[in-house]
Amino acid sequence: MRTLILGGARSGKSALAERLAGASGLDVVYLATSTAGDAEMTARIAHHRSRRPAAWDLVEEPIALADALERTARPGRCVLVDCLTLWLTNLLCAENKNLFTQQHGRLMELLPSLPGELILVSNEVGHGIVPLGELSRRFVDEAGRLHQAVACACDRVVLTVAGLPLPLKGSL
Amino acid sequence: MRTLILGGARSGKSALAERLAGASGLDVVYLATSTAGDAEMTARIAHHRSRRPAAWDLVEEPIALADALERTARPGRCVLVDCLTLWLTNLLCAENKNLFTQQHGRLMELLPSLPGELILVSNEVGHGIVPLGELSRRFVDEAGRLHQAVACACDRVVLTVAGLPLPLKGSL
Amino acid sequence: MRTLILGGARSGKSALAERLAGASGLDVVYLATSTAGDAEMTARIAHHRSRRPAAWDLVEEPIALADALERTARPGRCVLVDCLTLWLTNLLCAENKNLFTQQHGRLMELLPSLPGELILVSNEVGHGIVPLGELSRRFVDEAGRLHQAVACACDRVVLTVAGLPLPLKGSL
Repeated sequence: MRTLILGGARSGKSALAERLAGASGLDVVYLATSTAGDAEMTARIAHHRSRRPAAWDLVEEPIALADALERTARPGRCVLVDCLTLWLTNLLCAENKNLFTQQHGRLMELLPSLPGELILVSNEVGHGIVPLGELSRRFVDEAGRLHQAVACACDRVVLTVAGLPLPLKGSL
Repeated sequence: MRTLILGGARSGKSALAERLAGASGLDVVYLATSTAGDAEMTARIAHHRSRRPAAWDLVEEPIALADALERTARPGRCVLVDCLTLWLTNLLCAENKNLFTQQHGRLMELLPSLPGELILVSNEVGHGIVPLGELSRRFVDEAGRLHQAVACACDRVVLTVAGLPLPLKGSL
Repeated sequence: MRTLILGGARSGKSALAERLAGASGLDVVYLATSTAGDAEMTARIAHHRSRRPAAWDLVEEPIALADALERTARPGRCVLVDCLTLWLTNLLCAENKNLFTQQHGRLMELLPSLPGELILVSNEVGHGIVPLGELSRRFVDEAGRLHQAVACACDRVVLTVAGLPLPLKGSL
């Protein structure tokens, strides 16, 4: 079962993902795409970790998401990726302009055949006015395309609004 | 019955709230969180008032929303709050930085036990790209958290899109 | 049958519209509100055209949408308008400040009586934070009002998220 959870800022998407992962009854690996670059991020990561069950393993991978998934996913395990948007930001801001195409391609190739259970969290960002900056516009475009491609490869897609899940594909 | 109506700009959320309040068959009190600070706001408030039934009472309270609700709510009455987002803006822009914590806490404490019928209107603002300004980011975060907490305390949550209601919790 | 398809940036709204038009079994006219103003737009239009069936006719009309619809719509034909948001932008940016009122009025007058099948595509832009610029604010307001009015005149309204259709009125 592959699940994509989309939602706006502070819409409860991570909490829903963690609930679904806990309810799976499987071993859970939390795959974080953020890294502790500064004190604020370190504090936020510590805060996130404190609300997760201690038994969950943590893997941090800001760029090579497909590789990390390939190493981590296996039958009887649930991998929770939080979040695709930050990974996309890392790729689009990288000096190496080919990283995005490589990593995006690797992920889409890998997704359909990953063993075990997978829960992907991402920010819905395309429902506001088109932003002024070129990087912001590129980000909104690529996030929209990524969500379409990932949603297509998932069995279940849920939009969270005000902490409430709205199933878009499959059911909860 | 407590109802939260969320929607984007000009999505028909106030019109739906007014329709539900009218259909309740109860005495209606309209609790406005805006105040007539300037000529434009005075005109807008007059326009809003002109489309509401003359029998509805009006209460204006930009800050102390929980106090106003406590004074106003009673069995056999429907209180319509329009809107939470403006109240949140008033709190976040206030000089007293404790106002937000105090007022937010008071509202969440009061909500579950309020008598009568309550309809709360708020703007869904978190589905665009994360804004650049620090206050805007804080606002998007706090609005998201507020919506989750209020949705949790409500029996019914509806998202309006293009004037059409999409029930997220309970039914219309 | 009149259908409005709303969606955020890169949410799959045009692809859904093209799928529905193709499935109608009718002759299809593609009514584009963009025009080839520069090389980038020319390339984008060529790209869009390449993915549409060659049998579809193309009409370009950036401003006088109602007139174009009146000339084009007829029983046994499906007209696909892509997109209302760009048409609205063209009107709001025009030197003649009356154009918007005239054209908007003409469209709303015409819609209920148009023969044949009609599919309208538009961008959902009101779910982000209220933008800073006056033109952007005006655009978000007018887009919201336009979507409400058009949704009211349509038999079917669909929101696309991550390429997935969420029916808001009628069914797919």
